[in-house]
Amino acid sequence: MKTVLNDPDLNRLVYNALSFGTAVMLGAFVYFLTQMKSVAKQYQNGVAVSAVVVGIAGYHYYRMWSGWAAGTVNEGYRYADWLITVPLLVIELLIVLGVTADRRKKLMTTLVPATVLMIGLGYPGEVSKNDNTKWLFWVLAMLPFAYILLTLSKELKSAGSRETGAVSASIKNAATILLVTWMVYPIGYLFPVIFAVGNEGAEAARQVAYTIADITAKALYGIMILNIAKARSGDSH
Amino acid sequence: MKTVLNDPDLNRLVYNALSFGTAVMLGAFVYFLTQMKSVAKQYQNGVAVSAVVVGIAGYHYYRMWSGWAAGTVNEGYRYADWLITVPLLVIELLIVLGVTADRRKKLMTTLVPATVLMIGLGYPGEVSKNDNTKWLFWVLAMLPFAYILLTLSKELKSAGSRETGAVSASIKNAATILLVTWMVYPIGYLFPVIFAVGNEGAEAARQVAYTIADITAKALYGIMILNIAKARSGDSH
Repeated sequence: MKTVLNDPDLNRLVYNALSFGTAVMLGAFVYFLTQMKSVAKQYQNGVAVSAVVVGIAGYHYYRMWSGWAAGTVNEGYRYADWLITVPLLVIELLIVLGVTADRRKKLMTTLVPATVLMIGLGYPGEVSKNDNTKWLFWVLAMLPFAYILLTLSKELKSAGSRETGAVSASIKNAATILLVTWMVYPIGYLFPVIFAVGNEGAEAARQVAYTIADITAKALYGIMILNIAKARSGDSH
Repeated sequence: MKTVLNDPDLNRLVYNALSFGTAVMLGAFVYFLTQMKSVAKQYQNGVAVSAVVVGIAGYHYYRMWSGWAAGTVNEGYRYADWLITVPLLVIELLIVLGVTADRRKKLMTTLVPATVLMIGLGYPGEVSKNDNTKWLFWVLAMLPFAYILLTLSKELKSAGSRETGAVSASIKNAATILLVTWMVYPIGYLFPVIFAVGNEGAEAARQVAYTIADITAKALYGIMILNIAKARSGDSH
């Protein structure tokens, strides 16, 4: 049978990780749908976006898992997924952060194009087998990446200090998840450069790292978004 | 046709058990979703988690059944499933048990890592064909296992004595299901050690035992969780 990696243990590890990702995303999808009505009307939108994000991610993990099971790998699925879900992750955050509608609109018009640019610039480097090409697009993609993280952490900080109690605490949790998890992506991207293209351990590590980062950045982050929305709705359960 | 077990009767028994598991889990998934609104607002979350647990288990049983039908067995599915669902089983219990939010948070921060440790330590032993390795990881996994069961039974006991009537009775039922069913797992794990690795009867018995235990620990236990939530909502139907 054709497999992506020759080492059967590494091949099975990635196979299981992709199936695990599918299960978590689809589980989170159902959970977020059930939780929509548990928050105040103006935040239901944010929870709905969370549900859409993990639903789309579940679809892509199912595709990646099927591909891996058939012995093929299509990095396009990850980038197609991120192209849809990363702007939505920014949007769901802005919905529950309590910024004014005007400011939110202004932030969206710069942050959403920045996410698209970041992912579009990452893809040519990710699929290239040339180290120089990989580095070039890594550096280019890091520019919008840095801009997004700086802008969001500024917003998170000012929102955290604007609020008190449970709302402030839940915003701090979301900020931590966002900032720590997003760091995994540029590092995972560099695994083939650091360990040489074609190194099976590095390829397996990259796939597993992306999977764990996606679960944290989408499902766990969605729970943090839900917690902010619940705290704002005056319900800390 | 390639089959996992050579004995056709044993092979068909496991095949049917895995299909049975899929059907029960997906049935329970739909049922728990329909029951969410039948309990008070603060317990709906617990019922939603029950639904997610059996939904995810249904996905994994479907995968295991498909694998078995194709003549392969991937023990990774069981462990991926447990890695997601066992922490959730603890969480859904804590939601309906009526412990304070502070105490629940404290319990979660020790119990959830303990479940992850228990399952992570079980996997290397489960997939090993060496008796000594199996015993070693069994003993290691039993340490967090014992810790979890002791902590939960203490919580269940104090919750049971704090409450009266239908609530107290439903908590006792959930406690019994939890404590009895969880005992099946470390025993099922040892079947290949007791009856020799490769013994087909032991392999079939292990698969069937895990399936029955999963149905009890997730679907039946979910009904007990629902009963506690209903009793607490002043509706014992």
